[in-house]
Amino acid sequence: MPNPRINLPRLLERLQQLGDSARDARGRLTRSALSDTDRAGRDLVCGWMRDIGLQVSIDAIGNIFGCWHGELDAAPLMIGSHIDSVVDAGIYDGCYGVLSGLAVVEALEEQGIRPKCPLIVAAFTNEEGHRYAPDMMGSLVHAGGLDLDTALATVGVDGSVLGDELQRIGYAGDMLPGTIRPRAFIELHIEQGPLLEHDGIAIGAVENLQGISWQEITIKGVANHAGTTPTRLRHDAGLAAARIVTYLRDELAPPGDSTVATVGSIRLHPNVINVIASSATLSIDLRDPDSERFAEAEQRLTQFLDELALREGVEISARQLVRFEPVSFAGELVELVEQAAASLALSCRRMTSGAGHDAQMMARLCPAAMIFVPSRDGISHNPREHTDPEDLHAGTEVLLEVIVRLLAAAR
Amino acid sequence: MPNPRINLPRLLERLQQLGDSARDARGRLTRSALSDTDRAGRDLVCGWMRDIGLQVSIDAIGNIFGCWHGELDAAPLMIGSHIDSVVDAGIYDGCYGVLSGLAVVEALEEQGIRPKCPLIVAAFTNEEGHRYAPDMMGSLVHAGGLDLDTALATVGVDGSVLGDELQRIGYAGDMLPGTIRPRAFIELHIEQGPLLEHDGIAIGAVENLQGISWQEITIKGVANHAGTTPTRLRHDAGLAAARIVTYLRDELAPPGDSTVATVGSIRLHPNVINVIASSATLSIDLRDPDSERFAEAEQRLTQFLDELALREGVEISARQLVRFEPVSFAGELVELVEQAAASLALSCRRMTSGAGHDAQMMARLCPAAMIFVPSRDGISHNPREHTDPEDLHAGTEVLLEVIVRLLAAAR
Repeated sequence: MPNPRINLPRLLERLQQLGDSARDARGRLTRSALSDTDRAGRDLVCGWMRDIGLQVSIDAIGNIFGCWHGELDAAPLMIGSHIDSVVDAGIYDGCYGVLSGLAVVEALEEQGIRPKCPLIVAAFTNEEGHRYAPDMMGSLVHAGGLDLDTALATVGVDGSVLGDELQRIGYAGDMLPGTIRPRAFIELHIEQGPLLEHDGIAIGAVENLQGISWQEITIKGVANHAGTTPTRLRHDAGLAAARIVTYLRDELAPPGDSTVATVGSIRLHPNVINVIASSATLSIDLRDPDSERFAEAEQRLTQFLDELALREGVEISARQLVRFEPVSFAGELVELVEQAAASLALSCRRMTSGAGHDAQMMARLCPAAMIFVPSRDGISHNPREHTDPEDLHAGTEVLLEVIVRLLAAAR
Repeated sequence: MPNPRINLPRLLERLQQLGDSARDARGRLTRSALSDTDRAGRDLVCGWMRDIGLQVSIDAIGNIFGCWHGELDAAPLMIGSHIDSVVDAGIYDGCYGVLSGLAVVEALEEQGIRPKCPLIVAAFTNEEGHRYAPDMMGSLVHAGGLDLDTALATVGVDGSVLGDELQRIGYAGDMLPGTIRPRAFIELHIEQGPLLEHDGIAIGAVENLQGISWQEITIKGVANHAGTTPTRLRHDAGLAAARIVTYLRDELAPPGDSTVATVGSIRLHPNVINVIASSATLSIDLRDPDSERFAEAEQRLTQFLDELALREGVEISARQLVRFEPVSFAGELVELVEQAAASLALSCRRMTSGAGHDAQMMARLCPAAMIFVPSRDGISHNPREHTDPEDLHAGTEVLLEVIVRLLAAAR
């Protein structure tokens, strides 16, 4: 890479320090939204922001904005991600995007560049959503997709109320969410999948984000003795569940198809070796980056479930748990990411994000895009989550180059 | 039915009384082997046996034998079943076979018939096996298939030791198990399946009993993110589990085949909606009445599991939990059941028992057979277990007729 400008050791040091601030006695990293470790992490990040001269604002849902004022009082550029984590997490997911933003500000400072428009580094509240649903909450509230009062009243899996916890950790700010409307939003993130590593590519220019549908399927059959009930007289809820799993793989979402489907959870009742299952509950996670194909896949699935219920003599009902439409990122920003990577002699390819990210909420407000770097073995949400230092470096240099070009164009 | 000889009201009254003796405060019937309710039930049955003049002997595993001495000191005829039950049971399973034996003795007495050879009514210990494994334990020990000391040392799911509980309830007898070697054994039982009711048949002449294989299958895949892992790169333990379930139904044991297969239990790990399952554990219950087809089905399954592991990129291991070879009952006794039903103008057909019964253990010692009567909706091991009084009556009349004919042939 010609002329590196990012201070990589400092970025790595902060990633490690932020990670270590959330470890328990057994060394496990957990930074659940609005927990004590979230407070500790926020304190660290706000401290670093102030150290490098950013003005820190907190909004009423706890989103953190570190602002570097520019020459013009114009719409700002925004870099952002989140620092909350899943249970027993790695150190990169989210934190990399926030801390790279700080590294970009420092690099610009060190080069003597004063931005034309303000440059903001954001850390959004509760992206993971495992303590308080839905996930991506802070950016969703910022983008106007969820009412502030509703969000503050959210009851967590531990019975706590989100607004109370936000007060408790001292991050209930005064600013109205959505006050800051950026001219563009860029999120740098680890891929959390295996594609870049598998194909030996350094940079992913994320052009879209899959639509996500989560459904809970309940099947009612008839419990009966496994030895005395002839096959033709069975109404086996477990068999119907298995037929859904194989249909998804073989028909609806075969390898190579744009639709991806997963059944991660199955529960049978009574779940006993010699009793035909009377009921089964399973989850279906369906994703597709194309709105039309996404809707078509959902329709085909519904039709299959109807046919299956008739064929197996069972009742099947479906409950929608989550549904997000596919998101297309701003074409000019995706091109800019490609150009920035090319200017740094880094391999790059366009890709789809399989996971949800804050950038998809910000895309409702302004042009947005994402930059991905490789994840070793595609592992994330796990202590074994890892990205090589040179890949972390490359991603941050691309982010810097994109920001330099956007600032140059600001007026 | 011409000339009924069985006192049906008394039989129904005893079934009800024996059932009610094991109900808890909520009315649920549970007579787990060697529990307090088992003692209460044994006391009732032994009392009735003595009332009608049977000499009661208890062996060292707690099997109860009520003996009506005959004219000759010859090998006895034996009628028997069990009175222990599953948790939250019905009143018929097992109890019907024992109490019908008493009704047969009374009918013979009332007709002034004195048997040539002794006639014994037996109630075997721990047929259900849910507190102490294996099931059919009392008859298995009687038939020499399980060592007495091993059986007495069995530790229950509640931590109790079988021999201690047998002492505690006062049913550790002096007689050595296996002392009584009958000339023939007949067990009358509810079908516990839907076939007789479905086809409108009154009597089942059970000619054989399915071989049973219980296996626990463990599949190791790779956990990964449901959104970011392309289908072609997945090693999905849940998908492999589903493929086993559909293979069993579609290939190994389709409707109409003599082999019957059930997957009643599936557990995925981590069992989360957006994580591809890293492991799956499932049970396979495989049954076939024919030894060769039984062995062939087991072999085909093993071969399929090997191929599946390769195809899906997962590891699959199998652990045998239970295995009983198929049992063929004595042809002359099965014919006798058919002749007895015909003489009473009752519809009858030969059938296979899908469940295990004490008669399969007794078949190791002497000619044995079973008589089935219909189970409403095929339901058993459930408070809704039901057989119509006329069907209970018909079965007991057939049992009586079979005994009359066997006694007439005794010398």
